[in-house]
Amino acid sequence: MQLFHGLSAVQAVLQRRGGVVASEAQRAAVSEIIAAVQAEGDAAVARYSARFDGVALDEVVVPESLWAAAEAAVSGELKEAIGASIARVRAFYQRQPQEGFVRAEGGAVLGLLTRPLARVGCYIPGGTAPLFSSLIMTAVPAQVAGVPEIVVATPPRRDGSVAPEVLVTARLLGLSTIYRVGGAQAIAALAYGTAAIPKVDKIAGPGNTYVVLAMQQVFGAVGIASLPGPTETLVLADDSANPEYVAADLLAQAEHVYAQAVLVTPSEALWREVEAALERQLATLPTAETARAGLARGFVVLVSDLAEGLAVANAYAPEHLCLLVCDPWALLPNVQYAGGVFLGEHSLEALGDYSAGPSHVMPTAGTARFGSVLNVRDFQTVIPLVAASAELLREIGPAAARLARAEGLEAHARAIGLRLKGQ
Amino acid sequence: MQLFHGLSAVQAVLQRRGGVVASEAQRAAVSEIIAAVQAEGDAAVARYSARFDGVALDEVVVPESLWAAAEAAVSGELKEAIGASIARVRAFYQRQPQEGFVRAEGGAVLGLLTRPLARVGCYIPGGTAPLFSSLIMTAVPAQVAGVPEIVVATPPRRDGSVAPEVLVTARLLGLSTIYRVGGAQAIAALAYGTAAIPKVDKIAGPGNTYVVLAMQQVFGAVGIASLPGPTETLVLADDSANPEYVAADLLAQAEHVYAQAVLVTPSEALWREVEAALERQLATLPTAETARAGLARGFVVLVSDLAEGLAVANAYAPEHLCLLVCDPWALLPNVQYAGGVFLGEHSLEALGDYSAGPSHVMPTAGTARFGSVLNVRDFQTVIPLVAASAELLREIGPAAARLARAEGLEAHARAIGLRLKGQ
Repeated sequence: MQLFHGLSAVQAVLQRRGGVVASEAQRAAVSEIIAAVQAEGDAAVARYSARFDGVALDEVVVPESLWAAAEAAVSGELKEAIGASIARVRAFYQRQPQEGFVRAEGGAVLGLLTRPLARVGCYIPGGTAPLFSSLIMTAVPAQVAGVPEIVVATPPRRDGSVAPEVLVTARLLGLSTIYRVGGAQAIAALAYGTAAIPKVDKIAGPGNTYVVLAMQQVFGAVGIASLPGPTETLVLADDSANPEYVAADLLAQAEHVYAQAVLVTPSEALWREVEAALERQLATLPTAETARAGLARGFVVLVSDLAEGLAVANAYAPEHLCLLVCDPWALLPNVQYAGGVFLGEHSLEALGDYSAGPSHVMPTAGTARFGSVLNVRDFQTVIPLVAASAELLREIGPAAARLARAEGLEAHARAIGLRLKGQ
Repeated sequence: MQLFHGLSAVQAVLQRRGGVVASEAQRAAVSEIIAAVQAEGDAAVARYSARFDGVALDEVVVPESLWAAAEAAVSGELKEAIGASIARVRAFYQRQPQEGFVRAEGGAVLGLLTRPLARVGCYIPGGTAPLFSSLIMTAVPAQVAGVPEIVVATPPRRDGSVAPEVLVTARLLGLSTIYRVGGAQAIAALAYGTAAIPKVDKIAGPGNTYVVLAMQQVFGAVGIASLPGPTETLVLADDSANPEYVAADLLAQAEHVYAQAVLVTPSEALWREVEAALERQLATLPTAETARAGLARGFVVLVSDLAEGLAVANAYAPEHLCLLVCDPWALLPNVQYAGGVFLGEHSLEALGDYSAGPSHVMPTAGTARFGSVLNVRDFQTVIPLVAASAELLREIGPAAARLARAEGLEAHARAIGLRLKGQ
């Protein structure tokens, strides 16, 4: 981990992030895939699945046989752990206020109605050990929002199957429609629809560079909950922190592919102890190779005090902000930008990944400046409601007509004038 | 206006919309502008302002002399009307619930904190009669959200000035920083920052095709409130509607450039009367040419009853849904998709454009399926908060560690295990 002294020394590094980093060739490849899926539908989806996933499927939807096999393949203990995670995340989002308002006042009824989206797509990346917990973390907020139809897309494995943990998680969530399709072709199919895959209103979930580029390009034709990027954690720790815990938390971050782990501390002594603990813990860690790369992408910032440390954190706007300090609550009011805040040594981010309560889909790459953890509001619209009385129209109509004429919109002014005359 | 009979006849037309419609050449031109502004900053901004707006400015920020001139140029009556509009929109958004939650329960404090964004950019298109009301409709929700810094970008006129109405509106809103820059170069400057123009966290506001393409391309590096498209209104009217009012409302929509006006009615008699009223009203309308084009882009759907009419409206997902029917409240529960709903003949959309209360920045082109009227939540983040106790960690830690191991994330499991052991 590279060492910096103070906010000003690290400022350039902090601000170098942000946005989708991709080559023009990657962007063009994704454009081509999207155009092909729009033009040819399922035929294009099948072609790209053959090319990128090496499979030819009879049908894109997960068949009954795979569901049955998954039930047998997953242990009862794991099913129970999945169920417990679902229950905690659901309980968390059920606390989120989601009401609009309706109010009769001053001669009008005005309001904002909330409405769940009708159909949402969750994208779950594949891989040898797919992160099935991401299905919990994308689907539950949508369910709490009241979305009646949630479909899942995930890349097929070479043999056409889907990881049994993903299927079991889906069943425990009450989801029954999973499409075996991944990458940009999955995002295009969900955005525009094909004969086999329905067009959705919004897409949520993590993904690789091609998935993110596709999300960016279809944004507008479909809602995109967020553009996910590589995960990252900033640990702000003081002398009171246990260096073994700090090291363990940095490694838990660093073992994700492309992840970045950052330590900010006013204590050089702590950093020396953490450095030693990292080496000790890496020695027996099976994911040590990935974790070393994650640490190498990360850095350490020595600051003069916790106030400067928090300034570093706000400038970085981390996905995860872990406050391993004596009094984390004292810092909270000044946390301006973070995907999520974890207070104290028992609130470790690894717990947050599975069962603390909030979704682990949090804004990355500095997008916490404007983006939020996936939440109920991502899956609802608010619709304003205007019901004016004749009295209100008389009161505010003339001024509105004046504004319309000043903007050159005569028909607007006349539509108001006609009503005023008609009364 | 083209005539259709029933939902099934019009289905294909309804679904043809959606997404940003632009040529590859336009996309490439915008990419080039964004790359140039990123690389060269203000020099690139100046070059594009010279090319597209025909002006060379000493400084991009609006100077004091223009502010003073604007005060003198705008009548007291118009200032009063602007002020009244601001007050009504502000009162509306002050009603919007915006709290998160914090709750101590089951051995943890969990919550969602709301935080205003730090810096927001409002884009206001130019033109001979710029829609200064759009500044009210983008800035006020941001102000109510608590955003401390709001900057405005708007294209300069040929003489380097900005419409006085825009400046007066800004002053009445308490905004003092306006940059004279438009088009894709404005969006790029706000997204990435230049020496003269600060990088913002989110951009809101309407714009032409180039502005929208730029917004799409910078999405991710900066928040984008919505991708605006041409405005549209769907009037659902029954026999009880006054055909003169219906015609006036269709014309008020159609006089916007690229607008689309749609009438849905179970009454063929009403449509015949509306058709006649349209011709009568067009005869004296100064914006008749634009309005005729807007009507030509629009269409009429004759339906068997209001239920089918509402099905057409939901399939179209209009920006504005005007219910000129005997009992509009009876239809409201089944309104699934609309940018905004206007109930009854006194709640005309032209009033909504200026002073009914909600922002007139509403989702267009079918994006009401997933998007919402600009509102307070667009200018806040929610940050989840996790503070677990040792007891809670003991209770849920083992299951979380099991999930981590099933996902191949050993360092996650160990970070949890280390805490459990340490207790």
